Amino acid sequence: MAPAGAKKGILERLDAGEVVIGDGGFVFALEKRGYVKAGPWTPEAAAEHPEAVRQLHREFLRAGSNVMQTFTFYASDDKLENRGHTQRFTGQQINEAACDLAREVASEGDALVAGGVSQTPSYLSCKSEDDVKTIFKKQIDVFVQKDVDFLIAEYFEHVEEAEWAVQVLKTTGKPVAATLCIGPEGDLNGVSPGDCAVRLVKAGAQIVGINCHFDPETCVKTVKMMKEGVEKAGLKAHYMSQPLAYHTPDCNRQGFIDLPEFPFSLEPRILTRWDMQKYAREAYNAGIRYIGGCCGFEPYHIRALAEELAPERGFLPAGSEKHGTWGSGLDMHTKPWVRARARRDYWEKLKPASGRPFCPSMSVPDGWGITKGHADLMQQKEATSQDQLKSKC
Amino acid sequence: MAPAGAKKGILERLDAGEVVIGDGGFVFALEKRGYVKAGPWTPEAAAEHPEAVRQLHREFLRAGSNVMQTFTFYASDDKLENRGHTQRFTGQQINEAACDLAREVASEGDALVAGGVSQTPSYLSCKSEDDVKTIFKKQIDVFVQKDVDFLIAEYFEHVEEAEWAVQVLKTTGKPVAATLCIGPEGDLNGVSPGDCAVRLVKAGAQIVGINCHFDPETCVKTVKMMKEGVEKAGLKAHYMSQPLAYHTPDCNRQGFIDLPEFPFSLEPRILTRWDMQKYAREAYNAGIRYIGGCCGFEPYHIRALAEELAPERGFLPAGSEKHGTWGSGLDMHTKPWVRARARRDYWEKLKPASGRPFCPSMSVPDGWGITKGHADLMQQKEATSQDQLKSKC
Amino acid sequence: MAPAGAKKGILERLDAGEVVIGDGGFVFALEKRGYVKAGPWTPEAAAEHPEAVRQLHREFLRAGSNVMQTFTFYASDDKLENRGHTQRFTGQQINEAACDLAREVASEGDALVAGGVSQTPSYLSCKSEDDVKTIFKKQIDVFVQKDVDFLIAEYFEHVEEAEWAVQVLKTTGKPVAATLCIGPEGDLNGVSPGDCAVRLVKAGAQIVGINCHFDPETCVKTVKMMKEGVEKAGLKAHYMSQPLAYHTPDCNRQGFIDLPEFPFSLEPRILTRWDMQKYAREAYNAGIRYIGGCCGFEPYHIRALAEELAPERGFLPAGSEKHGTWGSGLDMHTKPWVRARARRDYWEKLKPASGRPFCPSMSVPDGWGITKGHADLMQQKEATSQDQLKSKC
Amino acid sequence: MAPAGAKKGILERLDAGEVVIGDGGFVFALEKRGYVKAGPWTPEAAAEHPEAVRQLHREFLRAGSNVMQTFTFYASDDKLENRGHTQRFTGQQINEAACDLAREVASEGDALVAGGVSQTPSYLSCKSEDDVKTIFKKQIDVFVQKDVDFLIAEYFEHVEEAEWAVQVLKTTGKPVAATLCIGPEGDLNGVSPGDCAVRLVKAGAQIVGINCHFDPETCVKTVKMMKEGVEKAGLKAHYMSQPLAYHTPDCNRQGFIDLPEFPFSLEPRILTRWDMQKYAREAYNAGIRYIGGCCGFEPYHIRALAEELAPERGFLPAGSEKHGTWGSGLDMHTKPWVRARARRDYWEKLKPASGRPFCPSMSVPDGWGITKGHADLMQQKEATSQDQLKSKC
Repeated sequence: MAPAGAKKGILERLDAGEVVIGDGGFVFALEKRGYVKAGPWTPEAAAEHPEAVRQLHREFLRAGSNVMQTFTFYASDDKLENRGHTQRFTGQQINEAACDLAREVASEGDALVAGGVSQTPSYLSCKSEDDVKTIFKKQIDVFVQKDVDFLIAEYFEHVEEAEWAVQVLKTTGKPVAATLCIGPEGDLNGVSPGDCAVRLVKAGAQIVGINCHFDPETCVKTVKMMKEGVEKAGLKAHYMSQPLAYHTPDCNRQGFIDLPEFPFSLEPRILTRWDMQKYAREAYNAGIRYIGGCCGFEPYHIRALAEELAPERGFLPAGSEKHGTWGSGLDMHTKPWVRARARRDYWEKLKPASGRPFCPSMSVPDGWGITKGHADLMQQKEATSQDQLKSKC
Repeated sequence: MAPAGAKKGILERLDAGEVVIGDGGFVFALEKRGYVKAGPWTPEAAAEHPEAVRQLHREFLRAGSNVMQTFTFYASDDKLENRGHTQRFTGQQINEAACDLAREVASEGDALVAGGVSQTPSYLSCKSEDDVKTIFKKQIDVFVQKDVDFLIAEYFEHVEEAEWAVQVLKTTGKPVAATLCIGPEGDLNGVSPGDCAVRLVKAGAQIVGINCHFDPETCVKTVKMMKEGVEKAGLKAHYMSQPLAYHTPDCNRQGFIDLPEFPFSLEPRILTRWDMQKYAREAYNAGIRYIGGCCGFEPYHIRALAEELAPERGFLPAGSEKHGTWGSGLDMHTKPWVRARARRDYWEKLKPASGRPFCPSMSVPDGWGITKGHADLMQQKEATSQDQLKSKC
Repeated sequence: MAPAGAKKGILERLDAGEVVIGDGGFVFALEKRGYVKAGPWTPEAAAEHPEAVRQLHREFLRAGSNVMQTFTFYASDDKLENRGHTQRFTGQQINEAACDLAREVASEGDALVAGGVSQTPSYLSCKSEDDVKTIFKKQIDVFVQKDVDFLIAEYFEHVEEAEWAVQVLKTTGKPVAATLCIGPEGDLNGVSPGDCAVRLVKAGAQIVGINCHFDPETCVKTVKMMKEGVEKAGLKAHYMSQPLAYHTPDCNRQGFIDLPEFPFSLEPRILTRWDMQKYAREAYNAGIRYIGGCCGFEPYHIRALAEELAPERGFLPAGSEKHGTWGSGLDMHTKPWVRARARRDYWEKLKPASGRPFCPSMSVPDGWGITKGHADLMQQKEATSQDQLKSKC
Repeated sequence: MAPAGAKKGILERLDAGEVVIGDGGFVFALEKRGYVKAGPWTPEAAAEHPEAVRQLHREFLRAGSNVMQTFTFYASDDKLENRGHTQRFTGQQINEAACDLAREVASEGDALVAGGVSQTPSYLSCKSEDDVKTIFKKQIDVFVQKDVDFLIAEYFEHVEEAEWAVQVLKTTGKPVAATLCIGPEGDLNGVSPGDCAVRLVKAGAQIVGINCHFDPETCVKTVKMMKEGVEKAGLKAHYMSQPLAYHTPDCNRQGFIDLPEFPFSLEPRILTRWDMQKYAREAYNAGIRYIGGCCGFEPYHIRALAEELAPERGFLPAGSEKHGTWGSGLDMHTKPWVRARARRDYWEKLKPASGRPFCPSMSVPDGWGITKGHADLMQQKEATSQDQLKSKC
C-alpha cells in the first residue's frame, strides 16, 4: 500500500495520456444486494451497513477501478429529508462515513477518492442560486475535511445547475469533473451537448462528460458532441463517460427513467461483458480517457473495460486472475461444444436471445413533456395520491 | 442470535408445513463479483477471499434465506485437480473454510447450514461406483466434522450418480435432500422425472427436487412430475426447487449449458423480481415448500420469493426494509409518470423490452447429442486443441 | 389441352407414387383482392365476380397446382343465410358457377377438379345427424351434376362431423379426401389425430390429412401422427396437408383463429418462399404426397412447393419461367451486394427481421375454453351486442 | 362509364383540394402472382399475359385508385436489353400494351391514366445527358400517341436524372409528377429532400414527392421535408407519396434494397390494413393529397387508404362492399372472442407478433458504400461471377 500522497493525481494521469477506469453505480448495485431502496435511492447504507459498501468498493477496485467515488449520491440534506429517509443518520454522518470507506479501499490499491455531488430537489423546485449552492457547499465541507483527491459534479439534467455546482466545487482548489445525464438532444432546457460542455469548462471543470440515463453507445456519441463543442470554442478539457449498463436505443430526451421498465424490469437490457469491451474501445477511440460506468454496472462490467484496454495500459486488473480473456476459461469445459465457445469471434458475433418471446425489443418511453418549473415536478413529501394515479392510469 | 441448537431442523420445518426459502447460486454471483472463474467454476474463494463469500451469505440471509449452503460446489478433489486449479488450497481446506463461513452467517439469523455435493468428473469418465462414492465420502467427512445441519446432493444429470451420493450422505444420519438438474424429458439416460424421484426417495432422500439448468417455470413443472411419481408409488417426500434466474423456453434436454449464450451472454434472460414472485407463487401452489434458486439469483431475487410468500409465512425478510412491495417505493419519485408505476398491476402486466432490436427472442441450443460414456466427455487436462475447435466451427 | 377424360385420376396418381400439388386458400387471397368479406368468408364471388376467381385459379395452375378446388367454401345454404349474405345468388347458383370456373381452368392444364364441403353451423348448433347430412347432400348434388373429379371434406374441427360428410360423399362413387383443421392435440372433443384418421379411413376416405388452422410445421407433424395411427390399425390411406401460410408456433388447440392477430394483422407471420420449400421437403419426407396450402397461400407459395419437388417430379411448373431458383434471378442485379444474394445458402440461413421493434414474436391466444354445444357457440343472426363485448373486454 | 374527356384532370383535382388515391406497385404484386421475374423486374407481362395485368388494374380500381399507372416500369430499351429479357416483344410493344390496359380499366371508373418513366441503367453507367434523355423520349412517344392523362417520373435515386426526365416529360404539355426513391438523408449524391424538391419544381414538375424504397412513416417524413424546402423557396407544388408496404425502420440511405431480406424474405415486414390507415391519415395531415403505394401494396392496402379518408372524400370505394370498417365484419363470427375483435380500438392497439421467435426485429443493411460512377455499378450483361461472389461472401 502506497501512501495516498504518492499516487498520481487525476489530472496528472489524464495529462500524461493515461486511461483512468472509473467505478460502477452504487445505488443500483446495492439495491440488488438489499441495502438501497429504489425510489428514494439515498445512500444511508454508508453509515448503516458499511461492510456492504466496503465490499462493493473492493470489488470495483479488484476489477480495475482507479477511482472510488464516495457513496454520497443524493446525500444532500434536502434530498435525504424529502425522500422520507428516517433520520437515524444526519447527512453529515453519511457523507463522512462514505468518505472513510472510499479512502480505506482506495488505499488498498491504485485508486483515488472522488467526492461527488448531484442535482438537487431544490433546483427542480426553483429555489434560488444561493439556496442551491448552499446545499452543495454543505456536502463539500465534508469532502474537504476528509481530503478527497478530486471532486465530481454528476447527474445533472440542467447545465445551469451543473455550472453552479462546479463554481462551488472550484472553491476547494481540487480538480473538478462535471458530467451531465443528457443525450444528443441536449439538456432539459434544450442546450446542446456542445454548448453544455463549453459552459462547464468555462465554469472551471477540467474534465467534462456524461453519466447515467443512456447506454454506452449514446453516451459516447454525446461526449463526442461535447468534445467538438469544446474544441470549436478553442478550449481544452479531458473527457469522461459513465453510462448505464442497460441498452437504451428507444429512449427519448429524458433517458431511461421514462422507459416503462424503469427501474424494476430493466434486466433484459443489461449489457454483456462483450458489449462492455466494445464500449471501452469506442470510448477510447473517441478520445475519452476517463472511462467508467453508472447504474447497472457490476464489477465484471468494469473488469471488461480494463481488459479491453489492457494492451494500451500494459496490465490487467487483479480480478482478471478469475477471468479468461474472450471466453478462454471455457477451453477445458466438460462439454466439447461449450469448449468451442472459447474464442473472441464467437462472442463478438453472437446475438443473444432474450428468452422472452412474448416481449418486444423496444418500448415507447413514458413522459408527459414537462420539465423544471412545472407544478408536477415541485417536490412533495406525501406519497402519490390516488387522484394523481387516477389522472394518468 | 439464537444458539444453533435452538433452531428447528429442516425436516421439522417442512413437516410443520413451513415454507423454507433457499439461497441463490454462488458461482455465478461470485463470478460477476470477480471471485470465481467461469469454466472451472471452482470455489477456492471460500479460502482465498472469505470476506466476499461471507458478504454474499449475509445478503442472502438478509433477503430471507433460511439455508446457507456451504460454498463447496465442485469442491471434490478430482474436480479441483482436473479444472487446473493451482493448488494453493487443498480440497479439505476449501471445504472447511466454506463450512465455517456458512455457519458464521447462519448463526446471525434464522438459517440452517447445508453441506452440498454435486456430480463428479469421475462418474462422467465411467469410474466405478466405489471410486465415485469415495469422492463423496471425502467431502462429507468435513461436513460431519463441521456439524452441518443437513446435506444436499445437487446438480446431478444422471439419477444413478445421485442415488450413489444419497447413499453416502445417508451414512451420516443427517437429513438428506437431493436435486437433479434435469427437465421434463428426464435425466440424460432418459429416466423420467417421476422415476428419478422414486429412486431418490428409495435411496433415502427426504427432500427431492430440481436445481439449475432450467428456468423456474420448467423446474416447477418438472418437480410436479416428480411429485406425481412419488405419490403414485405410494411414497412420501418433501419437494424443493432451485431453478436458474434465466428464462430458458428454448432449452432442450441438457438445459442452459447448451444455449449459445452460456455462460457469458445470458444477461437478456435474467428474471425480474416480478418474474420471481410469480415463480414463488407457482412453486407454492405446486406443493413445493423448499423454494430457492441457483445460477443467476441475486439477493433481490431471493427477497422477492420471501415477499411473495409473506402472507403465508406471516413476516417479511429483513431486506424488505429497503424495498417497497410491488414498486411502492416509487410513490414519491420526482417524476409523476414514474410515481404512476407504484402499483402491482403495472408490473405484473408489463412485457419488458430487451433493448436489443437486432437480437432474437429464442435461440437454437447447441449440443452434439452425446452423454456420459462418450469419448468426447472423457475428462482431459489439456485445453481444447485447435483440431477440436476446427472440427466443429 | 387434353380432354378431361384423358387425365389420370387423383387415386391413380397417388397410387403411382406421384406428388400431387394442391392449390392455395381462396377466401384469404380473394379477401386481399377485394372479393370476399372477412367474417362471413362466403364465396359468392364465384357468381358475382367470376373473372377474379378465374384469374386466381389460373395463377395457381401456372404455379403448379394439380387440383382446382371449387370455390365453394362455406357455400352451404345454412351458412350463406346465417352469415348475412344478401341473397343475390342462391347456394346452388354459387356452387354451379364455382364448378364451371374450376373446370374451365383445370382443362387448360394438368389439373383435376375437386368439389369441397366443410363444417356447418348446423353441427355446431347441435342439429341432428340427418339435418347435417342433408346440408352436405345439397352441395354434393351440384358436384355430381357438374361431374367433378373427386371430393374433399375439409376444415372440420370435430371428427364426428367429418365422418358424416365422408359418408355422404361416398355415396357418389367418387374418390374422397378428408382433412381436419386440428393440431397434435386432436379434435375439439379431444380425439387424437391418429384416432381421427382411423375413423375417417373407416368411413371411406381414401386420402386423409390436415388443412388450415396451423402452420406447415405443425400440420406435417399432425399428419405424421395420423399416418402412425392408420398404420398401427393395419389400414391404408394416402396423406395430404394443406396448412396455413402463417407461422403459428404460439397456437393452442383451436389454431390461428384464437390468435389475437386473426384475421387482420397476420401479415408478420406470412411464410416466405423458402419456408415453403422447407415445408414441401418435410411433407415429402413424412410420406405426404398430396401437398398444398390453405389460408395465406399466394401463387408464389404454391410455385415454391412445385420447385422444391421438381427433382422428384422431373419438371418445373409453368410459372418458374418467371422465377430464378434459390434467388438466381438476382445474379444480374445492378448492385453487387444484391447479386451476392443469388444463392441457396444465403436464403436458407437468413433469419428475416420483422421491421417491428415494438412487437413481440409470439402472442398468447385468446379463447374462452368452450366448444361445440356451448351456448356461446349457438349461431346467432344478430351482430355481437354491446353487452357481449363488455363482458369480455 | 363516363367518356375519358369528361373526367377531371389530375391538376384540377389537386387544385380543388381533392384527395387522389394512387395505385400499388405492379412488379411486386405480379411477381407473387407469377408474371414478373424478380431481379430483372421488367414488365413484359403487359404484352405476354394481359389478363393478369388487367385483373390487377381492376382490383386497384375497385379498391379506390384514381390513377392507373401504365405498367411500364423499367420498360426502357436499355433496361429490357440489359436485364436479359428475351426479346419476344419490343419495348414499344410492351409500352403500347401497357397503355391500352390502363386505359381500358380506367374507363371503367373514375381513374386517370398516367404514363411512367424511371431511372435508367444508362445514367448509372455515366452516359451523357443526351443519351439518357433519348431513352426517356422513346417511352414518351408512346405515351403521347396513346394520349395518357398525365406523366410520372418516378423511382429516381439521383435528382439530376429526375430533372432530365422532367425536362423531357414537360415537352409533351401534359401535367408532370416527379417522385424520388430517397429518404430523409437525401439523394445518393447527398442533395437534401428540400433541395431535391425545389430542383424538380423548377424543372417543371407540378407534383413532387417520394415513391418506393422506404416505409410510409419515412416517406411522409421525407415529403414533409420536400414541402418545407419548396415553401421556403417561395415556390408552389402538389405533394404525393407512394411508399413501400414494408416496415423499414432499419434502412440506411439506400432503402430496402440493402436490407438482407430484399427481395425474397420481406414478408414479416408487410404492413397491415391498419398500418395503412395510419399512413393515410399522416400523409393527409402532412398536406399530401396524392396518396398511393409502391412495392408490396396489394389491393386491400389501397382500399384501406380510401376507407381512412372516406370522411374527407364523402364516399367509400366499391371494394368496401366486401370489407367491414375497423373489423366490423367479425361481429357475427362464430366464436364470441373473435366477435370481440370487431372494434377500432382493438386493432389500433394490437402489436402483432411475428410468429418467428428465432428472428430479430431489425436487420443491419448491406451496402458497400458506393454509388453512381463506381466501377461495381457499371452495367454488366453477364451473371455475377464466382470471383465477384467470393470477394464478398
